[in-house]
Amino acid sequence: MALLYRHLRVHQIFGANTDVGKTIFATALVRASAHGDHNVLYLKPVSTGDIRDADDLHVRRFSGRFSGRVEADCLFRYDEPVSPHLAALRHGGANQVSDGTLVNAITSRLGSYVQATSGAGHVYVETAGGVHSPTLSGSTQLDAYRPLFFPTILIGDSKLGGISSTISAYESLLLRGYTVDALLLFREDYYQNWEYLTSYFAEKGVPVTAIPPPPARISSSEKDITNLESYYKKVSQSDSSGLSKVIAQLTERHQSRVKELNSMPARTHSQIWWPFVQHSLTHPNSKSIAVIDSAHKDYFSVYSDNNPHISLDTDSLLGYQFDGSASWWTQTLGHSNPTLTLAAARAAGRYGHTIFPQSIHLPALKLAETLLAGPGKDWASRVFYTDNGSTGMEVALKMALRAYTKRYPSERDTGRDRGKKLGVLGLKGSYHGDTIGVMNACDAGDGVYTCEWHESKGFWFDPPSLTIQDGRIVITLPRSLRQFASNGGAHGEDFVWIGARGSLNAVYDVEKRLGTTLARVYREFIERSLDNIKTEIAALVLEPLVMGAGGMIFVDPLFQRVLVDVVRSRSPPVKQSSEGGWSGIPVIFDEVFVGTYRMGHQTTSTILGVHPDIAVYAKMLSGGLVPLATTLAREEIFEAFVGERKDQALLHGHSYTAYPVACEVANETMKQIRKLTETEGWNDARRKWIGESTVEDVNDGATRVWSFWDPEFVDKISKLSSVKEVMTLGCVLAIKIDDGGKGYRSTAAQRILDPIKNTDASSNSPHPFGIHFRTLGDIAYFITSLNTEGQVIKKVEDRILEVLGGSDRT
Amino acid sequence: MALLYRHLRVHQIFGANTDVGKTIFATALVRASAHGDHNVLYLKPVSTGDIRDADDLHVRRFSGRFSGRVEADCLFRYDEPVSPHLAALRHGGANQVSDGTLVNAITSRLGSYVQATSGAGHVYVETAGGVHSPTLSGSTQLDAYRPLFFPTILIGDSKLGGISSTISAYESLLLRGYTVDALLLFREDYYQNWEYLTSYFAEKGVPVTAIPPPPARISSSEKDITNLESYYKKVSQSDSSGLSKVIAQLTERHQSRVKELNSMPARTHSQIWWPFVQHSLTHPNSKSIAVIDSAHKDYFSVYSDNNPHISLDTDSLLGYQFDGSASWWTQTLGHSNPTLTLAAARAAGRYGHTIFPQSIHLPALKLAETLLAGPGKDWASRVFYTDNGSTGMEVALKMALRAYTKRYPSERDTGRDRGKKLGVLGLKGSYHGDTIGVMNACDAGDGVYTCEWHESKGFWFDPPSLTIQDGRIVITLPRSLRQFASNGGAHGEDFVWIGARGSLNAVYDVEKRLGTTLARVYREFIERSLDNIKTEIAALVLEPLVMGAGGMIFVDPLFQRVLVDVVRSRSPPVKQSSEGGWSGIPVIFDEVFVGTYRMGHQTTSTILGVHPDIAVYAKMLSGGLVPLATTLAREEIFEAFVGERKDQALLHGHSYTAYPVACEVANETMKQIRKLTETEGWNDARRKWIGESTVEDVNDGATRVWSFWDPEFVDKISKLSSVKEVMTLGCVLAIKIDDGGKGYRSTAAQRILDPIKNTDASSNSPHPFGIHFRTLGDIAYFITSLNTEGQVIKKVEDRILEVLGGSDRT
Repeated sequence: MALLYRHLRVHQIFGANTDVGKTIFATALVRASAHGDHNVLYLKPVSTGDIRDADDLHVRRFSGRFSGRVEADCLFRYDEPVSPHLAALRHGGANQVSDGTLVNAITSRLGSYVQATSGAGHVYVETAGGVHSPTLSGSTQLDAYRPLFFPTILIGDSKLGGISSTISAYESLLLRGYTVDALLLFREDYYQNWEYLTSYFAEKGVPVTAIPPPPARISSSEKDITNLESYYKKVSQSDSSGLSKVIAQLTERHQSRVKELNSMPARTHSQIWWPFVQHSLTHPNSKSIAVIDSAHKDYFSVYSDNNPHISLDTDSLLGYQFDGSASWWTQTLGHSNPTLTLAAARAAGRYGHTIFPQSIHLPALKLAETLLAGPGKDWASRVFYTDNGSTGMEVALKMALRAYTKRYPSERDTGRDRGKKLGVLGLKGSYHGDTIGVMNACDAGDGVYTCEWHESKGFWFDPPSLTIQDGRIVITLPRSLRQFASNGGAHGEDFVWIGARGSLNAVYDVEKRLGTTLARVYREFIERSLDNIKTEIAALVLEPLVMGAGGMIFVDPLFQRVLVDVVRSRSPPVKQSSEGGWSGIPVIFDEVFVGTYRMGHQTTSTILGVHPDIAVYAKMLSGGLVPLATTLAREEIFEAFVGERKDQALLHGHSYTAYPVACEVANETMKQIRKLTETEGWNDARRKWIGESTVEDVNDGATRVWSFWDPEFVDKISKLSSVKEVMTLGCVLAIKIDDGGKGYRSTAAQRILDPIKNTDASSNSPHPFGIHFRTLGDIAYFITSLNTEGQVIKKVEDRILEVLGGSDRT
Repeated sequence: MALLYRHLRVHQIFGANTDVGKTIFATALVRASAHGDHNVLYLKPVSTGDIRDADDLHVRRFSGRFSGRVEADCLFRYDEPVSPHLAALRHGGANQVSDGTLVNAITSRLGSYVQATSGAGHVYVETAGGVHSPTLSGSTQLDAYRPLFFPTILIGDSKLGGISSTISAYESLLLRGYTVDALLLFREDYYQNWEYLTSYFAEKGVPVTAIPPPPARISSSEKDITNLESYYKKVSQSDSSGLSKVIAQLTERHQSRVKELNSMPARTHSQIWWPFVQHSLTHPNSKSIAVIDSAHKDYFSVYSDNNPHISLDTDSLLGYQFDGSASWWTQTLGHSNPTLTLAAARAAGRYGHTIFPQSIHLPALKLAETLLAGPGKDWASRVFYTDNGSTGMEVALKMALRAYTKRYPSERDTGRDRGKKLGVLGLKGSYHGDTIGVMNACDAGDGVYTCEWHESKGFWFDPPSLTIQDGRIVITLPRSLRQFASNGGAHGEDFVWIGARGSLNAVYDVEKRLGTTLARVYREFIERSLDNIKTEIAALVLEPLVMGAGGMIFVDPLFQRVLVDVVRSRSPPVKQSSEGGWSGIPVIFDEVFVGTYRMGHQTTSTILGVHPDIAVYAKMLSGGLVPLATTLAREEIFEAFVGERKDQALLHGHSYTAYPVACEVANETMKQIRKLTETEGWNDARRKWIGESTVEDVNDGATRVWSFWDPEFVDKISKLSSVKEVMTLGCVLAIKIDDGGKGYRSTAAQRILDPIKNTDASSNSPHPFGIHFRTLGDIAYFITSLNTEGQVIKKVEDRILEVLGGSDRT
């Protein structure tokens, strides 16, 4: 992964096109560095073409004359002068060298060089062809080398048309996040590309240097070499030619990057106010603050000058960490996914942002249609856009409150004050965001998610929860329910259902369980409780299946289903609703965390067997790149806001409502997810939980549950003495550490799992990457993206097991 | 601007590089279209190189044989085979043909062709060189042609390295929002680029077609022509060669685009739930719904098949509209600004989104530092990130409430209930967003921004307002203040200050006015009112200078200043605060609308002469591309959340907190704004309001006020009989239509100004673009970006004057 050495400056050389003089520039740079008494490594990872004229030989020819350690090397060589993917193909089969192998080979070669030189020197890694030329595996170079994230030198094109290819190559580099530290090209005086490009790139902060073109080739190879030698001498040694200035610039950029990374923790500590962080518990050093230099797929590339496992002189200062919280539950297709970057770029380039009320643009319309045909199928007809889950839920509440008050006008209480007194029904432990309106829809209780103005409006049930303890599935009934059950006709049953691991799907077979005694008890308990509530209840608000921020509480789905059924059947008397309308009180599903396949299904409605009247989607909706939220509603909810007067409308909106960048990214995300649902990776995971025969049904919306985490692993974890309970569905794994019930204020999970954060860059490490994770008090949770590879998850599982004391290794 | 004809299909041909066969493909496409009996226009706007071998002649050579109207034309021709900008330069001076002239010439040529053919046919507009080759003006082609927004055909590069240049060219096209309807290249069998590219682009929805390369040139020009003729015959006529299939594909794409645009209003009307829109007042046709096909700089490109001014057969179905609301107050540097697109792209490519608590990335850190050194200078030390102005204000309130309760513990009321009863001090008409927490910080009054759970907590003054009426500056005192003034010692003065237009800067010279009688009256009135408030007041919350959503109310800045001074000096007794701390109660400035130069100054604090303790920035902060909000605070506010326990922290956060894309876009925006402040455009506008001598002071943070709108125009508007009052500062122009005081429920402004929405595409139109605008009841407002050109503003002014009946023309 990304490499950055303190004293070894590494630059990757990309060409704006093939045949722009990459090797000439590389040779000249190597010589200029060597001339300054630096150690230099010239590395050409992949070379194609005539082996007698190979790039590394070209450099090597001149390398014997310097005092420093000058080396030239090529890792994969093919003698056909075609694009590497073709060379590899013609050489003996496609994809014989994967991008991972290529990256590892470079990492390893650099590792040995840095050891040999005690860390100081300059390295030039030269790519083949243009920035997007295919690699051996068939991917393009920009993507293949992206994990290494070297700063780059772009060799511009000095020929006719070269302005265009140079700028486009630069833009492709930017789209992958690369920084361009220097643009070099030949000073060709007819087309004068260097002149145009110097001024074009000045504004972008990229210094452009033009050097004279090399002497023309002549037939005598001896004379040719003499000519070249004198050319190289001129451009790499004299000050006027510019290359020694370039060497100084590159070194300066390298040093200021290291210096900047080094200064970031302290600057952050004194200026940034983080969400959900007790600042007194943080320290201004690079160990306690994750300085994220870049991110790629499942990993952060994190700077640390404070890692006991590394040598500051010869190890990379960048370690990589698995993003174990999926960056606060947002990651979907991995970090810096080029497909999503391009989606964002094309919407930005076409629209920027455009006003939304009474207007429309394709990205917003298409996303609305996708959602109505997806999670909104068979019930929703309208999509309202906001910026995040919290605002999406504020809108959901406004919708429900209006729909309720319009259907059930009060004779006694007709003024504005009636609205303020309305409450919602929910579950204890629920969370719908941090804006005060949605906080008021949650129980303050002794919870932590509160503030001065928090004023809980409603009634919240203690829910029965579902966990795996010591290899068994357990439904834990809260005291209130247990008491009710033993008092009233439940024949003294314990009501803690204990099943074997394999029976998870039985527990989630809600339809089947509706006929059980437990369902009857739930129903009676809910009915009795509702009879006693003084507050006028205007809506039911649920996080289906899992209450996330409340502590990854997996609620017994039967309880949630019965709750929905009861409120829809009860007083206030059911109005005769037109087809597709709502009955009883509006039911809101907050699917911000659980929706869009987090639980392995597009919507959790499939599992609960009921549709909501209003539902909110966010987080993974926009692929983990930019914020976006949508509130879906039935047509009857919408109609509560239709009237003659403007101020009867839903007067809620944010300036960037439905901004095209996010809508386009969401459309692309939905498209990519659809593809993933049919991949072998998903089927493999499903098979482990469901069995071969039923995998296809899952794609058809069947109700079987499954997880990306391995059932054997979950079983093992649940049996560890340090673990109280564990649970998993879809991307989510939640582990409750046994800490005597301190809940959110506990630091046990953080403490016990702390070692897994460590990166160990040493090559023989059994855990080459650290794991960045977040806790909710005594709960540690781990969340994959939808495309995290099975082998990566396996490594994370191994590491967790090891640290929690359950590994075979320890 | 963007052109789209119903029956005339226009495609722009871009090359992945120079010398990739653009003209061969163009010729073959022209022939294939002509062969299908279509009218064809081949247009080469700019041609360089040997005139005897010019591209249009190349096409013309074969054009005489078809029944349809086949024309070939070149608009600007230079015979030097260099990049157009050099050709123009060498031909006689730089920039002699501006991009605007180029775009207009194409528009005009197409206009005459569409008339001549009654609208049906195919047009191919061929660019010169690669996608980013410079145009005559020196800008690159992608940017120069962007206003026309033609769908494109990309000619790929079949040579070695051509995979890379083709993909990069495609990405550059995407970054400007272009759609690529077809990728064409030669079927070259050694490098086989076509094979790789076909599979690469399949996923992106771009069909790739490869045709045989042309015959090699031979010396005999007669034989050469015969060979070419037979080549063209083959590739443009036979089905197997693929070009007739391409013609069909292109036509299909064109038709489905028109069809899609046509279907959008109805699809929108039945599926989208807009913010702040009474849906019963909208209609499912393309006139009442702005179907935004793209946007560029100050303009939307809007589809309409319902515009009485155009002929559906021969006029463009896309009209353009000036974005008069700055897309709900977000636009800063114009739509689809390439600099911002690239900023978004490079952050997406480097990070995607990464978790924020206890971590840091450069874009967020740099933005925090820029803000603390900018609007936060001399007072703020911390930056908290959220997603929009509303959530930024929720955070501001949470900060203030905690800081207040920590400093002033209550002996009587120690429980949680105390917090709920705390109120804020503010002004009537204030608005801080639509989440319920910040709604509660506003007076519900008889306002429209309310909902069932809205529960106003606090006290709100009726503020004195500032307007220009009939050429005079008027401070209107609310009744409460007038009564107080006449009762108590104000010697019966009227206190409606009437000044001449030129005296605007005297009214905003707050420091000087502090010594006036009016200041004394304000002070006494505020003191007396505060004495009588029962609610415990925990914070002062102000939108400095202008209350936007409340109706563009320009508040007398003296009143706001005195209010701040009074609350900071009063009981609860001032705690001895450390340097830089806050006194009295925390003061929150909501600068979401007015900050970041909307009012011509980085912060309105400069004008009021006081700093807040907490301030919120959003909207223009992120350049009008993506949402972002920041809440700045003094260190002492921050310290109220520092403690031993985790749950004493500020427990507010959104998943995408400080997402790198928005932070990087904001950094770029701040950089571009800094440049703008020193441009002649800004100085011109300032001079009109301030006078020559003081312009430089403004950049140094002096307190002079100015506007992008012309003072003469504002004066004229204020004297119209249909206008009650007008006011302007910075980007904002607010016009109150005389409608008997119906306020937000009035539709007068919308009705009276309706004609300015119309686009008139006819070439002689005195108003070639429509103006998209929003109203707040009887207020119509118009907001420029920070880089809207003076001549564009002038046109908007002329049109407003004309419609309101004040133009010399009417």
